Amino acid sequence: MIEVIALDGDDTLWHSEHLFVDTQDRFRDLVRPYVDLDDAGIDERTLEVERRNLPVFGYGVKAFTLSLVETAIKVTEGRIRGADLQAVLDLGKVLIDHPVDLLDGVREAVDALTDTYRVMVITKGDLLHQETKVARSGLDELFWRVEIVSEKDEATYTRIFQRHAIDPSTFVMVGNSVRSDVLPVLALGGRAVHVPYTVTWALEHAEADPDVHDFPVLTSLAELPACIESMAREG
Amino acid sequence: MIEVIALDGDDTLWHSEHLFVDTQDRFRDLVRPYVDLDDAGIDERTLEVERRNLPVFGYGVKAFTLSLVETAIKVTEGRIRGADLQAVLDLGKVLIDHPVDLLDGVREAVDALTDTYRVMVITKGDLLHQETKVARSGLDELFWRVEIVSEKDEATYTRIFQRHAIDPSTFVMVGNSVRSDVLPVLALGGRAVHVPYTVTWALEHAEADPDVHDFPVLTSLAELPACIESMAREG
Repeated sequence: MIEVIALDGDDTLWHSEHLFVDTQDRFRDLVRPYVDLDDAGIDERTLEVERRNLPVFGYGVKAFTLSLVETAIKVTEGRIRGADLQAVLDLGKVLIDHPVDLLDGVREAVDALTDTYRVMVITKGDLLHQETKVARSGLDELFWRVEIVSEKDEATYTRIFQRHAIDPSTFVMVGNSVRSDVLPVLALGGRAVHVPYTVTWALEHAEADPDVHDFPVLTSLAELPACIESMAREG
Repeated sequence: MIEVIALDGDDTLWHSEHLFVDTQDRFRDLVRPYVDLDDAGIDERTLEVERRNLPVFGYGVKAFTLSLVETAIKVTEGRIRGADLQAVLDLGKVLIDHPVDLLDGVREAVDALTDTYRVMVITKGDLLHQETKVARSGLDELFWRVEIVSEKDEATYTRIFQRHAIDPSTFVMVGNSVRSDVLPVLALGGRAVHVPYTVTWALEHAEADPDVHDFPVLTSLAELPACIESMAREG
């Protein structure tokens, strides 16, 4: 029996990662004049700073912006001009303020699922930013619950199951990240559907083991209602 | 009948605002050599930037750090050296990593209340940082629920009441902020207890109207169990 369908937000309901990629393009344009590094070199330094800051700052645009400022100072050895650093800060603000652009078929899929199931969102990132995106998606009235979390691991899913009295065997998580949306849910006895996005952030990579992990992979959320129907039939 | 006691986190359970004040002292030391402003002038410019960024960045240390970086660039007209800007960023990291220092009497009060009531935390700020503080407080096992929210207004409290099936007339909110902990809860038919902290952030100021708003004011959380007992007797 399936009762609850949980959907990831970024790159599952709405486009996100390509905005970060665009921002990183602009960031490279800002620091390139100061440094003797190629694009891959700047990206590598950025990722180093992001990885080191992750346990302190967590996920989301504010953490990303702080890491870009820090990278800009570090790679330019402090030579970057104030106006260019302000431009780095402004990249973060533009990112937060960006309109929400739903992926194809999302509205129809969510609409169809809410006829039969309780549909919720489980997403990570900045609290205010994720709330704003849910509101801007125009889908918020359809969601039973919205959970914005600092990490999507087994402890987090366990807490969500307890809080909302969800039996994991009736729960399906749907998202673009094997690491965050698929593996921890399978480990807890829930089910998961993977809908890969065109780009995956380097710190979000994970491999599933086909001998151990069994989950459908879809090319679009438009295929989700039929997929859930077939999972429900199989029990 | 009282069933649920909700406690604010920052400056109610643990010290917080004085750490921001200390950080601001160090921030002034970093920018002072560049500018022809006195301390009040630097503070004023900082508050201007914080106020403008609030709708974009929300509350918490990451937003504060981004605002400090922006203020540093603005007041020095971009002349601040990279090493000093990195020092500003590091102030934010130190703030996030600071040990949690409980206010006097907190542990005993929470312990006493959990014998009779469901005790929860409702706090605003960065998700990961607030979760870390709850964990570091050593009190997390005592809490029925922890809600970290982006704003403490009537909409937020209404959502919390629905989500946890709380009847507002059985709910008491306890905190240091009249604006966030007292007024919205009274407006929804709940009760509130005000426990002022020694310092209040400028953007958190609000006035209650003694003719309209009726709530106890305590000098310490140590007085809370007796206060709740007397509220429960009065019904």
